[in-house]
Amino acid sequence: MKKEQIRKLFYPKSVAVVGATDNSKKMGYHAFKSLLNEYSGKLYPINPRRKEVLGLRAYSIDEIPEAPELAILAIPRDHIYESVEKLIEKGTRAFVIITAGFREAEISDGEELHRKLKDLVDRENAVVIGPNTFGIVNVDGKLNASFSPFLSSVKKGGIALVSQSGGVCHLLVPYALREGIGFSKIIGLGNRLNIDFHDILEYLEDDEETKSIALYIEGIENPRKLCSAISRIYRKKPVVAMKSGRFEKANRASQSHTGSIAGNYKIYVSALKQHGAVIADDLVDLISSAKALAMQRPLFGSRIAVISLVAGLGMVSADQVEISGLKLSVFSEETKKRLFSILPPYTIRENPVDLGFIANDKELCGEVIRIVAEDKNVDGIVVNYIYSWSEDFLVVPAEEIAEVGCKKPVTVCLNYPPGYWDEVKDFLEKKGIPVYPTPELAVKSLSALREYGKILSKG
Amino acid sequence: MKKEQIRKLFYPKSVAVVGATDNSKKMGYHAFKSLLNEYSGKLYPINPRRKEVLGLRAYSIDEIPEAPELAILAIPRDHIYESVEKLIEKGTRAFVIITAGFREAEISDGEELHRKLKDLVDRENAVVIGPNTFGIVNVDGKLNASFSPFLSSVKKGGIALVSQSGGVCHLLVPYALREGIGFSKIIGLGNRLNIDFHDILEYLEDDEETKSIALYIEGIENPRKLCSAISRIYRKKPVVAMKSGRFEKANRASQSHTGSIAGNYKIYVSALKQHGAVIADDLVDLISSAKALAMQRPLFGSRIAVISLVAGLGMVSADQVEISGLKLSVFSEETKKRLFSILPPYTIRENPVDLGFIANDKELCGEVIRIVAEDKNVDGIVVNYIYSWSEDFLVVPAEEIAEVGCKKPVTVCLNYPPGYWDEVKDFLEKKGIPVYPTPELAVKSLSALREYGKILSKG
Repeated sequence: MKKEQIRKLFYPKSVAVVGATDNSKKMGYHAFKSLLNEYSGKLYPINPRRKEVLGLRAYSIDEIPEAPELAILAIPRDHIYESVEKLIEKGTRAFVIITAGFREAEISDGEELHRKLKDLVDRENAVVIGPNTFGIVNVDGKLNASFSPFLSSVKKGGIALVSQSGGVCHLLVPYALREGIGFSKIIGLGNRLNIDFHDILEYLEDDEETKSIALYIEGIENPRKLCSAISRIYRKKPVVAMKSGRFEKANRASQSHTGSIAGNYKIYVSALKQHGAVIADDLVDLISSAKALAMQRPLFGSRIAVISLVAGLGMVSADQVEISGLKLSVFSEETKKRLFSILPPYTIRENPVDLGFIANDKELCGEVIRIVAEDKNVDGIVVNYIYSWSEDFLVVPAEEIAEVGCKKPVTVCLNYPPGYWDEVKDFLEKKGIPVYPTPELAVKSLSALREYGKILSKG
Repeated sequence: MKKEQIRKLFYPKSVAVVGATDNSKKMGYHAFKSLLNEYSGKLYPINPRRKEVLGLRAYSIDEIPEAPELAILAIPRDHIYESVEKLIEKGTRAFVIITAGFREAEISDGEELHRKLKDLVDRENAVVIGPNTFGIVNVDGKLNASFSPFLSSVKKGGIALVSQSGGVCHLLVPYALREGIGFSKIIGLGNRLNIDFHDILEYLEDDEETKSIALYIEGIENPRKLCSAISRIYRKKPVVAMKSGRFEKANRASQSHTGSIAGNYKIYVSALKQHGAVIADDLVDLISSAKALAMQRPLFGSRIAVISLVAGLGMVSADQVEISGLKLSVFSEETKKRLFSILPPYTIRENPVDLGFIANDKELCGEVIRIVAEDKNVDGIVVNYIYSWSEDFLVVPAEEIAEVGCKKPVTVCLNYPPGYWDEVKDFLEKKGIPVYPTPELAVKSLSALREYGKILSKG
């Protein structure tokens, strides 16, 4: 039931924007603009004081000729309840309430208004994202139901980002844009009036566009529900979670942010882990891990082979392998023999493998990668490549890496001047090989795949 | 003496490229192309088998009409000694030897050739970068003496990057390009025949373009010399160092990489620290810390104020403050009173400060930043801003941040869609406020400033 309502949040046939206006100083202007970009369903700007908004006929709620499947509200706090009530009467059951000033604000009646609104929507089986949220984005349905028109430029991909902080989404989206990371859905939960993490997780279980789920969590009010939702879905959809508010002092912020006191970090994190979530340490780790989990298979062993075009990056990777709790694989005698037979004498044939002396022999580099991948002592592989100063000089054995990546988890570090090697990166990622800008991130992401593998083996 | 020779490496009046060729499959082609880009001194392509190389008259070493101040060698290993000898005879004393296959290669005579060459250049008071290096770049002198023409696009800035690994430089340069981080000089030390870290550090002491020095270290052969060079210069030029080869297994790579066995990580790192280097944990940390150290003053206390446009980033920053060993400042009663008097009741007036409810009042946000900065309990400040979806909605109080940054160390987290806020970032950085793409990096960089402050206080 709730799941079906949530579907309307993401795939509504009609949307009303309450508070839509031509005045660019108002939130309602931006919320309406976001939809104008590319939403293809029926769109109703709701503003009783205007005849038109940005070229579309404006309505009062009473005048709308149908029940909009989704209503986005960006009007002053004191008009929210009445508007929701009217829309419910009309038949609307899905809401995004952008307006702030409820539970999170230290105003005397913020809490009261929150409860009153919750009673109403719970009673009527309606679903509400927010209040106090930037909104939601469904890349698949071309629905940008947020106050940020910019979010329409998000690249389509397999990650669903579910965040208690709009700021975190607004930080991660440009990062992801620059790194070519794509999303299926982005959800700013805000005050979680009656849609919380677990509701969204349950919905995402069957969302075909979503391959992995990244959670940014501040406070948790329903830890049991969250944990059981994770337990339920982690086999179908890997979940990676970052929890902020690690330290006592940091918790003050959450108290007045989205309406809950951040709980004890250790307890929550171990519960999340135990129920099937991979834990991320920081924001970049969160999104990088989600990317690996969306693209690659889980890692069922900790023995990693590092193959690098340049020894320096191999050393940095090897360090990170140990820091991340993985192990450098010891190659079998057979692998050593095979590498010995094809590589020049001065090449490093041990793990980490250095391709430096054969850098411009793409075939040979590919052969090395293949031989290493066939070693039974190797569970996963990280490949570091450096861009070429000339195509005559250096070609990435991308086909070989992709081939190997179908058999064992592989991540790649590839950093290059803007434009140089985008097609190599795109090729690898289309084949399911996640590419990262630093050797550390490439290894950390393997480690996320390993954590997921452990969770799957245990469960 | 050596310092004067090293100056010629960076500011030569004439350069010979031994091995220059039109054949783009050869290293000498790329080394020559790098110089063609923008080097304004006299340039000699050395290739006795050609009349011209890329439009310039080619010479044999004997034919060069003067002693080139710098010679770059990209010819087969077996011709290196002879060429260096001839050039020394001619009067050249500064060399960049790109060619590999010396000490780092497991060839019987690699070590021997290394020693023979070292005897020659030491005896003749010549200086050699390499062998087995990509080269050097002096952004100030528009000298790209490397095999990567791309390195000419490096942005000018205050960081000197001195690296034992060319791969690390080639990884960090595109990262820096994307983040707008600039360099004064980039040096790939290679096998360190007779120019080692300490020689470069001594040179950089008086290099006006260099404001901070980033070292990427694998093995250290002269730890005492390196430590004493750091001791000598750290008050003038902050030094940040990253040492790879942390774990036994990772050391194998360095053994065959640039010719030395990586020593015990803990011992070296504590020695580096004790002698005045800030230690970086990973490559991004290395370059981010170097950026902060190049731009900002040291931090002489650990009490940090976090000011954020959105509470979520404030929480993430607050966590990182504690993770990095800093402390969240407790504001004085006076500051609390002042904030109380100007802020609406539902705003978080404690540390971390949340500007959410006054986001579109630039003046008020600026005033908050100023009040917080005046608090005696605040040693340093991190400011998190989110880009605006519209200029009508949100303006960064950049002038106020810059003003505050002149009095206390400030770093800023600002991540935005490509192009949106470049001018804000540029303005802040011109005023000496380093801007980072994540809240974690903004805090980590404050932590580097704190480490430098501790070093200065202790010394």
